[in-house]
Amino acid sequence: MIEAYKAEFQNYLKSKTVVKEPKNLYEPIGYILSLGGKKLRPILALLSADAFGIDYRKALDVALAIEVFHNFTLIHDDIMDDAPLRRGKVTVHEKWDINTGILSGDAMLILAYQYLESYDAPVFKKLTQLFSKTGVEVCEGQQLDIDFETRTDVSLEEYMYMIKLKTSVLVGSALQMGAIIAEVSDEQSSKIYDFGLNLGIAFQLQDDYLDAFGDPEIFGKQVGGDIIENKKTYLYLLTLDTLKGKEKEKFEELFSKQSADAQVKIYTAKQMFTSTGAVDKIKILIEDYTTKSFEILESIDIPTAKKDMLKNFGKNLMKREV
Amino acid sequence: MIEAYKAEFQNYLKSKTVVKEPKNLYEPIGYILSLGGKKLRPILALLSADAFGIDYRKALDVALAIEVFHNFTLIHDDIMDDAPLRRGKVTVHEKWDINTGILSGDAMLILAYQYLESYDAPVFKKLTQLFSKTGVEVCEGQQLDIDFETRTDVSLEEYMYMIKLKTSVLVGSALQMGAIIAEVSDEQSSKIYDFGLNLGIAFQLQDDYLDAFGDPEIFGKQVGGDIIENKKTYLYLLTLDTLKGKEKEKFEELFSKQSADAQVKIYTAKQMFTSTGAVDKIKILIEDYTTKSFEILESIDIPTAKKDMLKNFGKNLMKREV
Repeated sequence: MIEAYKAEFQNYLKSKTVVKEPKNLYEPIGYILSLGGKKLRPILALLSADAFGIDYRKALDVALAIEVFHNFTLIHDDIMDDAPLRRGKVTVHEKWDINTGILSGDAMLILAYQYLESYDAPVFKKLTQLFSKTGVEVCEGQQLDIDFETRTDVSLEEYMYMIKLKTSVLVGSALQMGAIIAEVSDEQSSKIYDFGLNLGIAFQLQDDYLDAFGDPEIFGKQVGGDIIENKKTYLYLLTLDTLKGKEKEKFEELFSKQSADAQVKIYTAKQMFTSTGAVDKIKILIEDYTTKSFEILESIDIPTAKKDMLKNFGKNLMKREV
Repeated sequence: MIEAYKAEFQNYLKSKTVVKEPKNLYEPIGYILSLGGKKLRPILALLSADAFGIDYRKALDVALAIEVFHNFTLIHDDIMDDAPLRRGKVTVHEKWDINTGILSGDAMLILAYQYLESYDAPVFKKLTQLFSKTGVEVCEGQQLDIDFETRTDVSLEEYMYMIKLKTSVLVGSALQMGAIIAEVSDEQSSKIYDFGLNLGIAFQLQDDYLDAFGDPEIFGKQVGGDIIENKKTYLYLLTLDTLKGKEKEKFEELFSKQSADAQVKIYTAKQMFTSTGAVDKIKILIEDYTTKSFEILESIDIPTAKKDMLKNFGKNLMKREV
């Protein structure tokens, strides 16, 4: 079912990404959209529409808008992070240049809005309002992420708020947009958003955890990448939170410079994550957010079979088999 | 009247640009919006609403959306052009950094859409559709402008098309959006767009002309700036179009390197612009586009007094007293 949704969405995406003139504007858009990825957000939009009783194909344009928006953020974020690779392929600003990345990203943000034009005015307005609200939040989340890089006093609450804005609101919105086109009550549409928001937080915390402790074969990224890059993840902050005095200094020092031996650094960091109890804490948090999301799902007014479908999608996601 | 519109718009703009957290995202937005400028596009939106018989204040949010969109393009264009100054002040990416310029610009594009949310769903949809169409065109125009920098075979038609996309469509849209909120017929709303489109082209050609031949006191920018930067303006292309053989090579060479003596370069270029008849041609073109815009204006179904108001605004604009 999920695979069928993914395949149909990918066909739709392909049919809608036509490279026209000026080529230097549209080719990078075609490129980033062809790089693959889990298509998590568009699939959730389709699942939500189906769960609320309408033909999931009616949500294809919403799914497209969300995927194109998400990829716009990837292009611009990769410029800001000076990232050489995205999904194992050269990033847009490396393959072309920074200016191309900026302008193609800008065009994608506008194109995303245009895909919503297929909906009638009242639905269009609701979708666009949620889309813009979410877009501003994602920008704020990215800004906080940048700000946190140069701050040493980031609290666990602040970091969680950043994750929420940068990652989770778009997951919630994808689901809510499916509910909006099904024209359900604001209460129901708000609940499916909250389901996504909590699942999104669990997913992001899981991502932090797997970066250090994931199976390289399943995870698909370089294990220990965050550690090598001195990225202050939630796992880092949880560890730091338990340390005092010299131990704290030592840990901060480990995450402040480039290490000659990456494997030693990764090993040392993981030891600290584990011995301080941070790993256990993050596992509990992931479990808590997942459980909370499923509780919210239970309270939504949709058939049990649809709840099970969304729940299974969430479970598979947390197992990273999706 | 125009001055009153401008003052009221500026107050409105100020009241709507509140700097909140994260400061590094919102401060650059407040900064660029405080730099002044002619406010040409927002004033046209207000004038259009008034001309079509509704309270111009109903168009304040449309005016705001257009001004914020325009300033988003300025921030991103200044990054791409590596420009140190904007309206005589330091550009956003110079005052902060490129990443800040990218992200604050992104947020402004989304904020621009949000300002349209004050209109009812049917009007909101019409406004948003025109806004997105225009936005994509402006991106395409910017891409063509970048592409043309490294091409030596740009035709006059191609350059005119680029001007239309990069500059004029937004002028037309500002006027049409005023008409849309007045809920006039598509025919009338399309005519006021065409009035703006032609006036916008005349304005941009005038800008090319004044860059070389303007009075430094009135023009407000460095006269000869385009010549020093080897910018292939319409005046340059008109001149090149008349030249052959060695004369053509000489002229192309003048616009291919940095000159030790800027004043000599400016003098030589201006001599060529004049002696080849290119200056006369561009003056006729400016007159033609202005006349055409006024003819379209005549055919619009609005009171004569309102036509005169828009015509006077256009005339003042072309005299650069606005």
